[in-house]
Amino acid sequence: MSQLQNAMIILVKTFNDYARKEGKKDMLNKGEVKTLLEKELLLQEAKNPGEVDKFIKNLDRDSDSEVDFSEFMVLVARLACMIHDFSKK
Amino acid sequence: MSQLQNAMIILVKTFNDYARKEGKKDMLNKGEVKTLLEKELLLQEAKNPGEVDKFIKNLDRDSDSEVDFSEFMVLVARLACMIHDFSKK
Repeated sequence: MSQLQNAMIILVKTFNDYARKEGKKDMLNKGEVKTLLEKELLLQEAKNPGEVDKFIKNLDRDSDSEVDFSEFMVLVARLACMIHDFSKK
Repeated sequence: MSQLQNAMIILVKTFNDYARKEGKKDMLNKGEVKTLLEKELLLQEAKNPGEVDKFIKNLDRDSDSEVDFSEFMVLVARLACMIHDFSKK
């Protein structure tokens, strides 16, 4: 398997690992987003429920208060663009 | 480093590895897209120059005939959504 295929499988596995914890098995609810932000992105802001709400609102394009896989990929793309910008410096 | 951070770093590294081969160091030109499709995604269609042109046209939102990092992330997001759909079955 190539490095790119491997990375995409890790993205799917990460989403599924958190989405399957509780509630709908294919959506990240608020608690799951909070855990993902804390454990995967080490975001201290995730300890503040207001910040988690803002994060979800920002990603949740269909306004159902949950984050589906395509919405999760918007977050991944934004973060990867930041890492890429940093890699140019 | 978390698995999600690791995956995003692989995405950036993969893009940079191919983009830096020739021409502009921060863009994938046609030859680089072709090599990436063949080596990373094992796409046999990449052997056909017409198919590579179609692929670039589909990703190249600013119509400069090259693929920048954010355009590359659109491809990654689409492919990851396909893998995710498959993972639900």
